[in-house]
Amino acid sequence: MALSFTLAEIAARLGGEVRGDGTVRICGIGTLEHARPDQISFLTNSKYRSQLAGTQAGALILGEPDAEATSLPRLIVRNPYACFARVSALLNPLPEAAPGIHPAAVVADSARVDATASIAATAVVGAGAVIGAHSVIGEGCSIGENVVIGRNARLYPRVVVYHDCVIGDNLIAHSGVVIGSDGFGIAMDEGRWIKIQQIGRVVIGNDVEIGANTTIDRGALDDTVIEDGVKLDNQIQIAHNVRIGAHTAIAGCVGIAGSATIGKYCQIGGSAGILGHLQIADHTVISSFTLINKSIREPGNYTAIYPFSAMDDWRRNAVHLRHLDEMARRLKHLEKELQSLKQEPSKGENT
Amino acid sequence: MALSFTLAEIAARLGGEVRGDGTVRICGIGTLEHARPDQISFLTNSKYRSQLAGTQAGALILGEPDAEATSLPRLIVRNPYACFARVSALLNPLPEAAPGIHPAAVVADSARVDATASIAATAVVGAGAVIGAHSVIGEGCSIGENVVIGRNARLYPRVVVYHDCVIGDNLIAHSGVVIGSDGFGIAMDEGRWIKIQQIGRVVIGNDVEIGANTTIDRGALDDTVIEDGVKLDNQIQIAHNVRIGAHTAIAGCVGIAGSATIGKYCQIGGSAGILGHLQIADHTVISSFTLINKSIREPGNYTAIYPFSAMDDWRRNAVHLRHLDEMARRLKHLEKELQSLKQEPSKGENT
Amino acid sequence: MALSFTLAEIAARLGGEVRGDGTVRICGIGTLEHARPDQISFLTNSKYRSQLAGTQAGALILGEPDAEATSLPRLIVRNPYACFARVSALLNPLPEAAPGIHPAAVVADSARVDATASIAATAVVGAGAVIGAHSVIGEGCSIGENVVIGRNARLYPRVVVYHDCVIGDNLIAHSGVVIGSDGFGIAMDEGRWIKIQQIGRVVIGNDVEIGANTTIDRGALDDTVIEDGVKLDNQIQIAHNVRIGAHTAIAGCVGIAGSATIGKYCQIGGSAGILGHLQIADHTVISSFTLINKSIREPGNYTAIYPFSAMDDWRRNAVHLRHLDEMARRLKHLEKELQSLKQEPSKGENT
Repeated sequence: MALSFTLAEIAARLGGEVRGDGTVRICGIGTLEHARPDQISFLTNSKYRSQLAGTQAGALILGEPDAEATSLPRLIVRNPYACFARVSALLNPLPEAAPGIHPAAVVADSARVDATASIAATAVVGAGAVIGAHSVIGEGCSIGENVVIGRNARLYPRVVVYHDCVIGDNLIAHSGVVIGSDGFGIAMDEGRWIKIQQIGRVVIGNDVEIGANTTIDRGALDDTVIEDGVKLDNQIQIAHNVRIGAHTAIAGCVGIAGSATIGKYCQIGGSAGILGHLQIADHTVISSFTLINKSIREPGNYTAIYPFSAMDDWRRNAVHLRHLDEMARRLKHLEKELQSLKQEPSKGENT
Repeated sequence: MALSFTLAEIAARLGGEVRGDGTVRICGIGTLEHARPDQISFLTNSKYRSQLAGTQAGALILGEPDAEATSLPRLIVRNPYACFARVSALLNPLPEAAPGIHPAAVVADSARVDATASIAATAVVGAGAVIGAHSVIGEGCSIGENVVIGRNARLYPRVVVYHDCVIGDNLIAHSGVVIGSDGFGIAMDEGRWIKIQQIGRVVIGNDVEIGANTTIDRGALDDTVIEDGVKLDNQIQIAHNVRIGAHTAIAGCVGIAGSATIGKYCQIGGSAGILGHLQIADHTVISSFTLINKSIREPGNYTAIYPFSAMDDWRRNAVHLRHLDEMARRLKHLEKELQSLKQEPSKGENT
Repeated sequence: MALSFTLAEIAARLGGEVRGDGTVRICGIGTLEHARPDQISFLTNSKYRSQLAGTQAGALILGEPDAEATSLPRLIVRNPYACFARVSALLNPLPEAAPGIHPAAVVADSARVDATASIAATAVVGAGAVIGAHSVIGEGCSIGENVVIGRNARLYPRVVVYHDCVIGDNLIAHSGVVIGSDGFGIAMDEGRWIKIQQIGRVVIGNDVEIGANTTIDRGALDDTVIEDGVKLDNQIQIAHNVRIGAHTAIAGCVGIAGSATIGKYCQIGGSAGILGHLQIADHTVISSFTLINKSIREPGNYTAIYPFSAMDDWRRNAVHLRHLDEMARRLKHLEKELQSLKQEPSKGENT
């Protein structure tokens, strides 16, 4: 919190061109509305340029098109939003966790925990597990047997990783995340479901973040795979044998059914769903609340939002959804009738 | 469980008018169908008055319109459902948790835990945290650094509260709740997502209840705010910088995206969704399974339920949804044609 | 992992007819695509028979129709998928947990834990709880007071069972499951919500599996009931007083509202929803993403999927959903007009 930098120091570290007074000292970041004079703020969309007028911020991060929209000290950059992210990280470094194993943690003798890693009170690390350098395992986490976690991981309290899963570097996993639980594999036989053992793993690349209470099931036979740079919000369900391509971002409450393959650089809106065994092309964008029930081969924006309305309007209109086919047939019939009426105008007269 | 009251004693404590034998002794509460003679039951809707006939209950809670619909001992009140809630609380007080810190809890030296509070085995309380009088922190809970929790809170096992969050009095948080996890803030830069530090807090008012496995993200810069008296069911996802107005009730599995502002006294049905940055007016009612994708300025009932049907009917009808615009144009065309046919009836004859 | 069986030994244990070399030794199971020569694979649908050609598997599980589609050693069975499940279980037995109570577990003196049961580090078992033979309670689990859990249960880390719930034999509960949290029962009175004590229990039969982070609320007055053989995927929400019939299977992210009664042998797709107080007939199949908002009396397949489309197409078409009633009225009007035009063709001429 006591960290501070001049605007010129920020530019020296993160790039960008200073205009105005580079000696202004910045110790925090804030919205245009709430930033104080010792804070820096930012404008990521020229559309909101008028909001610059009232800000109390001591400095601003701006793109080139807005460079002269204020006389405040400012940092002119190519990508103001990304610069804001970097300045925020500079000013708000995560607290360091003390290295070592807390006396109230339970770590198996055969686990290999790097000396720079931190294992919190009540965390449990199973036999044969490997925890990389500078990784932090929070309170109440459960790391199963033979799990491998890379460097610089941060597992917040109460993350569970089941046995044999493999995780790269820089993982951030929020509380309540479950990695490697059994996929939903059952076979009906003579009136009873038989469980199909789930013997695949979850394999997670580098630079992945997973939101609170998200679940990722292990594969049935082969693995479930989350590639590098994937960002998952809260309460997402990823079923067995799903593959999520690198740098895809998925918002909260999405469900992805078994063996679906999502491409790279996709964006999936909140509470969307993807059925099993589908393929989604790279760079596909899917709206909130949209069920994808067949494969998408072409990148683009896809949606299936039913527009909301006031209850009375809905009652009047929605009832027709069950009769659209009849409406379509009646419309076609009318067209034919009208056509014949135009072609044989005198026919009626003869009856 | 051994608690019992006469009907007259209940009336003395909670109000209402006794009719019939006030000395009947009540030690429990039950449905009309299952209540035993030592239990009290209730009728909250005159529509079901006929169900009174068969009940074995020893007494009843009734509204004025149903006061003479039975000869059983009865308590006549303005709001039978609220009275039922109060009688149930009277007869079924929560077990007291023993005050003090369990030897298997881990509490930082600098935490301030009221002497009347209870910290269960395997709970962890971080540096600088404050736990108010009579609050109960269940097994496996993780209370982050500098968290403030008011009086009479009850955190069931495995609740996580991240650092710096502030919670009022009388919180009930069920197992698996996560308060203060990072919001989903990422910025794309040259093919990679950069994380935006989430430096706001979650601030929760008084008298809030939060259901199992619900998640509430901390703010990006400013705070996420849950006002007094808000009631949240299970598995709700509340994103960063959301504000939920006082006394709003939200059913299970709802997702609320970032910076949405929900008014006071709203009711939101299960699995509904609200997109980011929207405003929802006070006293708005939203149906289950409804996505709200623009702000609601007028209170009322809003819905977007797609009516279900048998699969064959659905196949026949749903296909037309992708051609509604064409249908609308054909309909308009027909109307024009018919109009011109009516105006120039002899035109056809001349061709 | 070192387990292996000849094909003939597998047939002797699990049934089926061996064709080809029964002495081939099998130590694992794999997909047709990835199986190695010491693994067995399977074909569950004759449609994919052509995939048999390229497999490296050492043996195959096949149904009678495909019995001669390969010359590889093979096991011919009535139900190949169920046989695959049984072979997988034979080859991949769950690791045995060491019986006994870990020194870092916290077990109440009055709890009765079978000598063959296993209580892991940081698990907590409350007063009066009963844990049956060979049951495994994972790390960080919280078993409430007076809970009864039968034989052969396997609770993965961080499962919570609230007080008084009753669970049969062979439960599998994955991490983050919450059983017995309070139902969402509130009564409005003079501008404030009053909590309705939830004094029922959750009662679970035999052979039930519950996926990660699924929540099952206790009943308000009577119990919430999950019958024998029910299979629940991840992140399902089951509200108070729901009853789920035997051998029903429910996919991930489904929400079931209070007092709904689901029949036996139902199948419910991912992210579907069922409103409160409804009845669903035995053997009903409900699609993903479908809200059931009235009772289903006849078994069958039901759905309410809004078909997705490219954003531009959606914009053009979805707007008409709010005007379907007007379209229907205009269509009817046209039909009448056309009818009268056909019946009185000369009317126009007289004007």
